[in-house]
Amino acid sequence: MKIIRSTKEMNSFSRKAHVKGKTVGFVPTMGALHEGHVSLIRQAAAENDIVVVSIFVNPIQFGPNEDYKRYPRNLRLDAQLCEKVGTDVIFCPNAQQMYPANYKTYVNVSDLSDCLCGKFRPGHFKGVATAVTKLFNIISPDIAYFGQKDAQQASIIKKMTEDLNIPIKIKVMPTVREKDGLAMSSRNAYLNKEERQDAAVVYQALILAKNLIKQGGVDSSGIIRKMRQLINRKKSARIQYISIVDPKDLKPIDKIRGKVLIALSVWIGKTRLIDNIVVKP
Amino acid sequence: MKIIRSTKEMNSFSRKAHVKGKTVGFVPTMGALHEGHVSLIRQAAAENDIVVVSIFVNPIQFGPNEDYKRYPRNLRLDAQLCEKVGTDVIFCPNAQQMYPANYKTYVNVSDLSDCLCGKFRPGHFKGVATAVTKLFNIISPDIAYFGQKDAQQASIIKKMTEDLNIPIKIKVMPTVREKDGLAMSSRNAYLNKEERQDAAVVYQALILAKNLIKQGGVDSSGIIRKMRQLINRKKSARIQYISIVDPKDLKPIDKIRGKVLIALSVWIGKTRLIDNIVVKP
Repeated sequence: MKIIRSTKEMNSFSRKAHVKGKTVGFVPTMGALHEGHVSLIRQAAAENDIVVVSIFVNPIQFGPNEDYKRYPRNLRLDAQLCEKVGTDVIFCPNAQQMYPANYKTYVNVSDLSDCLCGKFRPGHFKGVATAVTKLFNIISPDIAYFGQKDAQQASIIKKMTEDLNIPIKIKVMPTVREKDGLAMSSRNAYLNKEERQDAAVVYQALILAKNLIKQGGVDSSGIIRKMRQLINRKKSARIQYISIVDPKDLKPIDKIRGKVLIALSVWIGKTRLIDNIVVKP
Repeated sequence: MKIIRSTKEMNSFSRKAHVKGKTVGFVPTMGALHEGHVSLIRQAAAENDIVVVSIFVNPIQFGPNEDYKRYPRNLRLDAQLCEKVGTDVIFCPNAQQMYPANYKTYVNVSDLSDCLCGKFRPGHFKGVATAVTKLFNIISPDIAYFGQKDAQQASIIKKMTEDLNIPIKIKVMPTVREKDGLAMSSRNAYLNKEERQDAAVVYQALILAKNLIKQGGVDSSGIIRKMRQLINRKKSARIQYISIVDPKDLKPIDKIRGKVLIALSVWIGKTRLIDNIVVKP
């Protein structure tokens, strides 16, 4: 396995691979890798000749009061895991290289970036779309893999790729969960023991909603009210939002008649967790 | 010469060319081709195996009161000229294909897009950057050619390409002029006889500024004042702006001590003309 830190070297590596007729699968990450990332890397390895994993904690997708500085970084551990599951190249540029002084260009997907998490993290998805565009151009993969856990991100990247005619296929893989249902996330490492137990309520609320819909519930506001009640029983939990939306355009759905995306963000202590499921009535 | 209207077909044509090891030169245009475009196409033909010229009047770079609808369109004439000077493919998608309903993604280069023409055409350069990003992704050329006549556009495209790690070389070719110095522009066709004569003053003002600087003039405001006086002698002329800026970051220069870009926009009757020169003291 190769570790590449320079954008130039990464680009020329990919070019050479393409010239040789090899396909390149790409898994963008911020490191602190977990089973969710592993599932993406394994899928990429199964479908491509070469697998590139980027590890880059992207500063421009963090707000001023967010966890950019304390976000977990451990390249040695990440590299061990990557190698074990079929990675050929880790691409880990530094922030200075990705955003040199005088950096000015941003990619924004309107509407999709302003709702759900975007409402509480202004500029976040512009930062994501910009970094992913850069990584796509540097690596020029055939297929790029994203997790369904970040459903809004996946929608935005799909839309951006289509809108900008980027010749890359986007695949979104299912959320990987702990035994109690908690979605795998690098930020779970922030939770203390009690918070970790409370955190299971996030997925439980989604399952509650799913059951209500399967039993014929069509009224989003009633379902959301019951989810709120369940979550609020946990001392460490504070709901940021719960939304039931159209999975394509992320617009709120009042009466559930087709597939919906149920998405929420909950503070567990000082840790912000997100999760979602897609439910068909 | 091939005429391609579909983005898919264009993309697969380029892919095949690259697989065969051929280089692709790209000249983006809005049609209504003139000697300025011809110089770009000839340069592309001299430096690449295959030359693609796009002809696309990009709706999102026009303001609501601008000339999108009346912008000259004549594919037959343009195609004749293209073929004569070494074009292999004309790519001419329609607006519906480039911006389908529900289009949402925009590329913006901050600062550089907000000064000079950008101040008077809000959203213009975002529209340009977005369309060029799309065309770059569809055509994936090795080299793309732009005219120095649109100096701000050239700066923005260069910066965008660098910032987003787009693996394409940008070349900016000198402005081609009529005998009396008027910069070639598709919009010159809007001018009546008298206006056409008056229009020469735009370049004359640039030459005046150049001479003043060559004679030791360092004070931008004094030079701009003299340019204004010269232009205002013409009945049909109304100055929109005259600026002396740093050629790289487009920021105003008060005291001229190194290379400067002198740029201006002048209404001649109902036609807005722009021009510029780079001067070294």
